[in-house]
Amino acid sequence: MLVNCVVYQNGKKLADIPKEDIHLYLNEPDCFVWLALRDPLPHELNDLQREFGLHELAVEDAHHGHQRPKLEEYGDSLFAVMHTIEVVGNGLRVGEVDVFVGKNYVLSVRSGSEQGFANVRSRCEREPHLLRQGAGFVLYALMDAVVDHYFPAIDALEDELEVVEKGIFSGTPARENIEALYAIKQKLMVLKHAAGPLHEAAGKLYGGRVPEICAGTQEYFRDVYDHLFRINQSIDSLRDMVTTAISVNLSLISLQENETTKRLAAYAALVAVPTMIAGIYGMNFKLMPELQWAFGYPLAVVVMVAIDVYLFFRFRRAEWL
Amino acid sequence: MLVNCVVYQNGKKLADIPKEDIHLYLNEPDCFVWLALRDPLPHELNDLQREFGLHELAVEDAHHGHQRPKLEEYGDSLFAVMHTIEVVGNGLRVGEVDVFVGKNYVLSVRSGSEQGFANVRSRCEREPHLLRQGAGFVLYALMDAVVDHYFPAIDALEDELEVVEKGIFSGTPARENIEALYAIKQKLMVLKHAAGPLHEAAGKLYGGRVPEICAGTQEYFRDVYDHLFRINQSIDSLRDMVTTAISVNLSLISLQENETTKRLAAYAALVAVPTMIAGIYGMNFKLMPELQWAFGYPLAVVVMVAIDVYLFFRFRRAEWL
Amino acid sequence: MLVNCVVYQNGKKLADIPKEDIHLYLNEPDCFVWLALRDPLPHELNDLQREFGLHELAVEDAHHGHQRPKLEEYGDSLFAVMHTIEVVGNGLRVGEVDVFVGKNYVLSVRSGSEQGFANVRSRCEREPHLLRQGAGFVLYALMDAVVDHYFPAIDALEDELEVVEKGIFSGTPARENIEALYAIKQKLMVLKHAAGPLHEAAGKLYGGRVPEICAGTQEYFRDVYDHLFRINQSIDSLRDMVTTAISVNLSLISLQENETTKRLAAYAALVAVPTMIAGIYGMNFKLMPELQWAFGYPLAVVVMVAIDVYLFFRFRRAEWL
Amino acid sequence: MLVNCVVYQNGKKLADIPKEDIHLYLNEPDCFVWLALRDPLPHELNDLQREFGLHELAVEDAHHGHQRPKLEEYGDSLFAVMHTIEVVGNGLRVGEVDVFVGKNYVLSVRSGSEQGFANVRSRCEREPHLLRQGAGFVLYALMDAVVDHYFPAIDALEDELEVVEKGIFSGTPARENIEALYAIKQKLMVLKHAAGPLHEAAGKLYGGRVPEICAGTQEYFRDVYDHLFRINQSIDSLRDMVTTAISVNLSLISLQENETTKRLAAYAALVAVPTMIAGIYGMNFKLMPELQWAFGYPLAVVVMVAIDVYLFFRFRRAEWL
Amino acid sequence: MLVNCVVYQNGKKLADIPKEDIHLYLNEPDCFVWLALRDPLPHELNDLQREFGLHELAVEDAHHGHQRPKLEEYGDSLFAVMHTIEVVGNGLRVGEVDVFVGKNYVLSVRSGSEQGFANVRSRCEREPHLLRQGAGFVLYALMDAVVDHYFPAIDALEDELEVVEKGIFSGTPARENIEALYAIKQKLMVLKHAAGPLHEAAGKLYGGRVPEICAGTQEYFRDVYDHLFRINQSIDSLRDMVTTAISVNLSLISLQENETTKRLAAYAALVAVPTMIAGIYGMNFKLMPELQWAFGYPLAVVVMVAIDVYLFFRFRRAEWL
Repeated sequence: MLVNCVVYQNGKKLADIPKEDIHLYLNEPDCFVWLALRDPLPHELNDLQREFGLHELAVEDAHHGHQRPKLEEYGDSLFAVMHTIEVVGNGLRVGEVDVFVGKNYVLSVRSGSEQGFANVRSRCEREPHLLRQGAGFVLYALMDAVVDHYFPAIDALEDELEVVEKGIFSGTPARENIEALYAIKQKLMVLKHAAGPLHEAAGKLYGGRVPEICAGTQEYFRDVYDHLFRINQSIDSLRDMVTTAISVNLSLISLQENETTKRLAAYAALVAVPTMIAGIYGMNFKLMPELQWAFGYPLAVVVMVAIDVYLFFRFRRAEWL
Repeated sequence: MLVNCVVYQNGKKLADIPKEDIHLYLNEPDCFVWLALRDPLPHELNDLQREFGLHELAVEDAHHGHQRPKLEEYGDSLFAVMHTIEVVGNGLRVGEVDVFVGKNYVLSVRSGSEQGFANVRSRCEREPHLLRQGAGFVLYALMDAVVDHYFPAIDALEDELEVVEKGIFSGTPARENIEALYAIKQKLMVLKHAAGPLHEAAGKLYGGRVPEICAGTQEYFRDVYDHLFRINQSIDSLRDMVTTAISVNLSLISLQENETTKRLAAYAALVAVPTMIAGIYGMNFKLMPELQWAFGYPLAVVVMVAIDVYLFFRFRRAEWL
Repeated sequence: MLVNCVVYQNGKKLADIPKEDIHLYLNEPDCFVWLALRDPLPHELNDLQREFGLHELAVEDAHHGHQRPKLEEYGDSLFAVMHTIEVVGNGLRVGEVDVFVGKNYVLSVRSGSEQGFANVRSRCEREPHLLRQGAGFVLYALMDAVVDHYFPAIDALEDELEVVEKGIFSGTPARENIEALYAIKQKLMVLKHAAGPLHEAAGKLYGGRVPEICAGTQEYFRDVYDHLFRINQSIDSLRDMVTTAISVNLSLISLQENETTKRLAAYAALVAVPTMIAGIYGMNFKLMPELQWAFGYPLAVVVMVAIDVYLFFRFRRAEWL
Repeated sequence: MLVNCVVYQNGKKLADIPKEDIHLYLNEPDCFVWLALRDPLPHELNDLQREFGLHELAVEDAHHGHQRPKLEEYGDSLFAVMHTIEVVGNGLRVGEVDVFVGKNYVLSVRSGSEQGFANVRSRCEREPHLLRQGAGFVLYALMDAVVDHYFPAIDALEDELEVVEKGIFSGTPARENIEALYAIKQKLMVLKHAAGPLHEAAGKLYGGRVPEICAGTQEYFRDVYDHLFRINQSIDSLRDMVTTAISVNLSLISLQENETTKRLAAYAALVAVPTMIAGIYGMNFKLMPELQWAFGYPLAVVVMVAIDVYLFFRFRRAEWL
Repeated sequence: MLVNCVVYQNGKKLADIPKEDIHLYLNEPDCFVWLALRDPLPHELNDLQREFGLHELAVEDAHHGHQRPKLEEYGDSLFAVMHTIEVVGNGLRVGEVDVFVGKNYVLSVRSGSEQGFANVRSRCEREPHLLRQGAGFVLYALMDAVVDHYFPAIDALEDELEVVEKGIFSGTPARENIEALYAIKQKLMVLKHAAGPLHEAAGKLYGGRVPEICAGTQEYFRDVYDHLFRINQSIDSLRDMVTTAISVNLSLISLQENETTKRLAAYAALVAVPTMIAGIYGMNFKLMPELQWAFGYPLAVVVMVAIDVYLFFRFRRAEWL
């Protein structure tokens, strides 16, 4: 589905144009076309492939989707795959944006994501002095928008972890904690899958040899690179904390088992000792003087109770009960 | 076994030739011979060694097989060892491809792998403008084909892990989970063994000093390098998840033990308390008024049952049962 | 809230000026204005944005607060976000300092921190030959002051860890140890969040391409960089020790469980054996000669006690009791 | 003990010479002496020190032995310490080779190792065009021979690990597995101690600034460097697997404990329930009608057996027995 | 306390001089003063600060002591902080050496360490051709002496670990093992604290931009750097082994618990079964023929014993006892 198709010259919007008129503008000086597609049908992509001379392999990747994030150069043009991350309820929704960038065109193909790029476009149009730098700047703007959505995802995971941490020490069932921690870890892996390769890709867009399209916007990509660096660092910190939290939780499980064992043993003692006494007075010796006492029976019961009361308080003092 | 032997000039296929005619073409300009062998007999390799002047050490490695992936320069020629990975049922089948590359020849020796390179050859022949770059491009095409097969292997392992993860939290026996996780870890190590050294080897084929044969195809090798980078990153992520899953599984085992202990203790209590009461009324005191009651016995039984019912519900409420 | 606003020329303080007079000095040669704000209201920042031409994005970050530490270049000016760390009782209080630096101004915005920068200013004023280097030197002085407060935080954590370590081996309840260790780990993560990105940021301010404002003070930033390097190394060492301490604690818990089990078993034996003997003499066989003995009963009791005494000492010797 | 002492010119062996004649050849052009010592006496080394002008510190190290692998430059000469590794039965035998290399001499001192270097010498002599490159090439040949022996050591450890892995899942006693895994880990550390520093040392012998003696053989040292890179990578992979195997083994121990507990509890139940029933019919109530029944006793026994049979099958079904 | 104060010219000792005469020599060509202090009083340092123009911050650090190892440049002069490590009994004694180095002076301040530098001085004096290189060489000599003492510390820790490793598998109480392992880990952290930052500091003294004082002695500092590299690598290896040993120990604890549980269960069975039989014959059924048998009682006892003997051997065979 074509979302929109606009032609820009010298950083200013010239016109919304129908797809069919694209070729009219491709050879204009300082001019580029910016198309946005969403979940496109095969033939839509194929038409544009012919129009812009997109590389076959890149188009194939865009058709298939489910690519790992990457940045590939095909001659003068670039093909970028990015993962969009949205926090949806308790989970992360991963979408994909494939961006084809050439000297005079930018084509973004979005799939599986609610997050549109209308605001990226309007922000770009508000800053014609930047947009004048051409298609490379649009790539930056898109990448920046994608990366900016990683931060709230990390913040959400940090909050989630904080809740679990509190739960660990305040008695939330250990199983719940483990499941929550593992879920956080899985989401961190999703984030890492998105941010890790993109970090590496962004590193190719500033300093050293840089694709010509991005040469004028290097400093912007350095900025994105820095953001991704911080994001990856946060992910690593979180992973470390999750690992620690899991092992702390395990310690607490063992501890709890220890306490369970003690408590059970205490209760067992409270039952076993009277049983032993009862057993003794159940013996059939002919001569057991106590058995003849008038108060033998109540006395035996009193002794049993007394011993249990004594044991109970001792166990309580030792914090077994 | 000779699979095929073709001579190319300026990127176009000249002819299928018998092995004996190779020497006729070796000094033609812009011409190279591409041979594919499969599980060759020693004398086959030795013949070709003389023909192309292959380095003794490299040929020895190819004879022996079971080499770690590597890339070695012998004067102007290259010798590459790569591991092919195929997903076969529940496992990974590892094969080996040894590639000798010189100015005017490419010799690939394949063993232990079902995966042929016929499609690599036909793809190359469809793109004569690329194949014109010579033997270095063929090395790239082979390497690319090998590496492309690593992705499905990783995807398969990711799927496998997902299944185990679900099993962990939904009650699959812990032993099965452990065995599955360890098996995944082992396969990851197989993949790492294939992809790790190859990543390092690919790094020698672009940027900085590059073997002359590959000088014109540097950008392609950079592409392979990037793929391997992403593959290695995925392997590391997966290893990390497997480690976490193992420790989560351990936590769950401990937890289960905890629960087993509690349940056992509860049942023990249900038996121990009546036993104690029975013990008491088994004492032989002369004066135990209850013993004389008409309803003494049924009462005692009722008390036993009542206590057990009470305990049962308390345990149930405390989730011990 | 404006803390103070001073104009400097050639490294010497010219005058405390009201905010309204700033524009009078901005074009003076070798002159710069140094403003300190604390928890500013939105309009205060907006006024200054207009005055100094601060970049919109940077001002927005300062409005929002809760930024990760970073250093961003906007044209000729710099925007730095740093976390201040104060040891407060048993915890760490994290504040934020945002610094805008341009050729002729330094604007520091402090929030959530008790720690002021009055001493930074007075130290700078005592060293006019350094302050002459301009706004870049002030950035250094602020950064240095922030980083210097990280050291006592690390020392405090090292002390805390030492206390816990002693506790682990001298019988502090394991749960307390775990909670303490996890708290240390959390504080280390807070420190890492402050020091890690700042380390990376400081690395941009010396060697290689350096923002012009900081060109003359590179060596100072190298010093800050070194401090941060040592801080990060200490954090990593501490994290490693905490991890080890957690796993040692787990071992000790398991060990304790082992000992608990043994002790319980020993006590159980002391009860079970007399119970068995009593059971035997409770049997109703017609012919049990012992039952007729005059000293049968006391003998049985003596045997019970004797066995228990024997067991008791055996258990004690085996260190089960 | 002097193993041999040969003088080479232009890559060809001139003569076996006695130690006393060395000085006759030291100033010949394109000429170098290659001595091999084994477990030398102090005076032997001291004689040679004077002859070749070896550095005092290096000679001291060779006297003492038990050095960590390293490469040191003393003016124009090099001093290398390498660890030889041999697989001997179930263990690794570590020897040491110290090599002094100067413009016109190579002196290798071997200790604690069965593995000689006669084959290195004969291989060198078969390739005079390589040996012509002088003493640096001999250093390479020795280093290459040492490193080549690391591969079988790694293979042996991989095989050992595989055996243990199978044992873990097929019921080898856990203690045996742990001991075996720890032994593998220790051997890996021995290997790492040998290969790690040598890897770093080899890195100094190619690219960048290279000692003059090795300048002509850089590419060879790059080869050794690559081998060591692969070896170190394999060591790291193995260490990772061993760590995982240990934690998997721990999980299985916990699991086994879990199963033991269940089985014990089941057997305990099979005894406790009849005991309870017996207790009930051991009560002394006057009115217990069952006691008067002719078939009361056999009935009670039948009930006991019936309950036990029922329990037995239930436990079996739940896989507790 | 002033240990000594000597003036050198052209690498040769001129004279022992009193502190008051230092200024007489400071402007002599090729001349430098080497002072050694030990636990100096504040005024001693202050005097020298004026004499040599030491930087205030460096002097302050020296006053306070307890600095992390570091190397700081103040203009043309250097300030180095190093930790000395001595193996004292079962522990490590950490001292501190602060070294101020300028063009014409070296001032070393030692505290908390028994290890003097008299032998460094005498070694330097024996090698005037080296000492001629000036104050930078003295810094090297001191650093080298400090670093050389790290090796025996590592060796001691390796030996300690070996003892514990043997203990783990041969039955030393697990608690002792854990404490010993943790103590080793703590000492490794002390070593790492000393060697880690120093490694980084040494890296600034060779290659790239080097402080002028050390320019002529770069190669020596590279040597120290290499030593520190090996030391840090050994520390990391040891830390890894300690971590593994801790987890192996935990496995063995779990295993032992498993065995304890089994043994207890076996003994419990030996008591429980006779108790059950006794219970059965303690029932009060009117018609229990066995009770009337003349040999009923002995038979019952024989049955009990027989079952216990049978169980005992079965348990023994299953290695539960």
